[in-house]
Amino acid sequence: MELSEYLKSVAEKVDQEADEYSKATDTTLQKASAHLLLGGGKRLRPAMVLLAADAVRKGASADIFSAALALEWTHTFTLVHDDIMDGDSLRRGRPTVHVVWNEATAILAGDVLYARAFEYLCSVKNASAESKVKAVQMLSHACYEICEGQEEDVSFETRNDVRASEYLEMVRKKTGVLYAAAAGIGAALAGGDAKQIAAFYTLGQNTGIAFQIQDDIIDLMTPPEISGKDQASDLRENKQTLLAITAREMGVDLSKYHKDHLTKEEIAEAIALLEMSGVLGKVRGISEKMIADSKAGLASVVPASEERDLIFEMVDFFITRGY
Amino acid sequence: MELSEYLKSVAEKVDQEADEYSKATDTTLQKASAHLLLGGGKRLRPAMVLLAADAVRKGASADIFSAALALEWTHTFTLVHDDIMDGDSLRRGRPTVHVVWNEATAILAGDVLYARAFEYLCSVKNASAESKVKAVQMLSHACYEICEGQEEDVSFETRNDVRASEYLEMVRKKTGVLYAAAAGIGAALAGGDAKQIAAFYTLGQNTGIAFQIQDDIIDLMTPPEISGKDQASDLRENKQTLLAITAREMGVDLSKYHKDHLTKEEIAEAIALLEMSGVLGKVRGISEKMIADSKAGLASVVPASEERDLIFEMVDFFITRGY
Repeated sequence: MELSEYLKSVAEKVDQEADEYSKATDTTLQKASAHLLLGGGKRLRPAMVLLAADAVRKGASADIFSAALALEWTHTFTLVHDDIMDGDSLRRGRPTVHVVWNEATAILAGDVLYARAFEYLCSVKNASAESKVKAVQMLSHACYEICEGQEEDVSFETRNDVRASEYLEMVRKKTGVLYAAAAGIGAALAGGDAKQIAAFYTLGQNTGIAFQIQDDIIDLMTPPEISGKDQASDLRENKQTLLAITAREMGVDLSKYHKDHLTKEEIAEAIALLEMSGVLGKVRGISEKMIADSKAGLASVVPASEERDLIFEMVDFFITRGY
Repeated sequence: MELSEYLKSVAEKVDQEADEYSKATDTTLQKASAHLLLGGGKRLRPAMVLLAADAVRKGASADIFSAALALEWTHTFTLVHDDIMDGDSLRRGRPTVHVVWNEATAILAGDVLYARAFEYLCSVKNASAESKVKAVQMLSHACYEICEGQEEDVSFETRNDVRASEYLEMVRKKTGVLYAAAAGIGAALAGGDAKQIAAFYTLGQNTGIAFQIQDDIIDLMTPPEISGKDQASDLRENKQTLLAITAREMGVDLSKYHKDHLTKEEIAEAIALLEMSGVLGKVRGISEKMIADSKAGLASVVPASEERDLIFEMVDFFITRGY
């Protein structure tokens, strides 16, 4: 199966569950908590859970499908709360939960999604109680670190001396650990051994970090006609991304681009500067190495299969995608 | 052992753990999430976990102590988020988390406490994985219902036709289910059978409801010299408590007391009216019956022991306490 076809089929199933969830009761809280779930999304974390499960034990994904939902519900919980904290009014092209309802309802909606996630984890079929406990531990620990990562991210906004190691640790927490939990939980619930679970966890974690680094590259490189977003906004705002930090650490001065508007020519000039100075190459190299290492780690403990190939394809896609 | 002595020893242990938690790291998030934990409190939910465990298997409480923390951390999580939603600036005599820091930090602090609670549940010793999964299910389901209860509570503020059954269902969710989970989790982790877990769950749930009803009675009956709070504020504000609802359903008119200030004489008159008309008796009867039924239910499946006696004493205290 093609990766794109596989991801599409997972997304359709998750969309359908989100739809059913939204209709379960007609309370305000049910509607508010379903709002963002119904906004679509790539559903990459559920795909990671299911592929990891099938790579460990062919067919396991059908038994543990509700764990895939647990990851998507958790991801959505973090987005709903992040939107309140960041004061964002749009997400996936829809008004955010606290805008449609209010902050109190949005706080509760996030809490409800989080609670549901643990209920979903416990309700998987044909998995040992031991593996469920491991899954709960991975998910709760991930949530703890996500909160820490979000706090660090906010604190970075008022600093201009963030080191690359600090940035990578923040991104590990904010984005990496939930992909880590996705892959680790899929492997655990399918009956994987400790080495397999660890290899999947690492692969997921590195994938999440690489995904975020690629997001920063896309912000710089992708014209608005393709991304649908403002180009180079991180550069203009002097946001402490790995690109900006690496440039500073390599003595590349980007201060002339920190202003309210950049022309197409100025953006092209900045890209050229970052390419020629080796900043882009260094940043790309960091994520490529993380992906390569974790693929090798996984290959040493999980036998070849269609699902393993799809996982490798998916993580490659994370660092090569253009938007 | 005397109940008061037992509760004091539990509170001291929980206070000590809260203190250690606050020192684990020195991040803002750690401090913010520890803030309310350090504010003391009666620690009744931890006591319920530990007594239920020992009533099922003598000595189990030492093994599963971290589950008691899980309940206190969860309770604190709900308070931190409630304080944001209700805009409250004081709790346990200290400024609330969102006042000391800000809303974003308070949202994260609540989320972190909640995540930790599940980690604590998974880390108990000498308990089967099956019982841990049950514990996670009870805690996550409780959180889901607490959110629903909070939403219903807010929606009642703009209504004057709330029925007693609606009120009791709201209180069951908002206060009952966490005591239910406390008792059920203690029993499950100690190796209790399904009947024992169910009996403890019901006892905890009814206890929580009765606790809230007693709170409403205390608001009316207790002079500020004793309670440290404004007397009869619910009556003045025409809050939809079980007392107010029962009065309305029994045709007792309290509208003359819905005003900004009540003299001591007016409060005494209102109390006399509610006593003479049978409203107070009816409300007291509801909580007394719930406690009696659940004590009988527990006595039929859990053998007599010092801990069972302490639980019975504790639930009696819930409906007899004066403040």
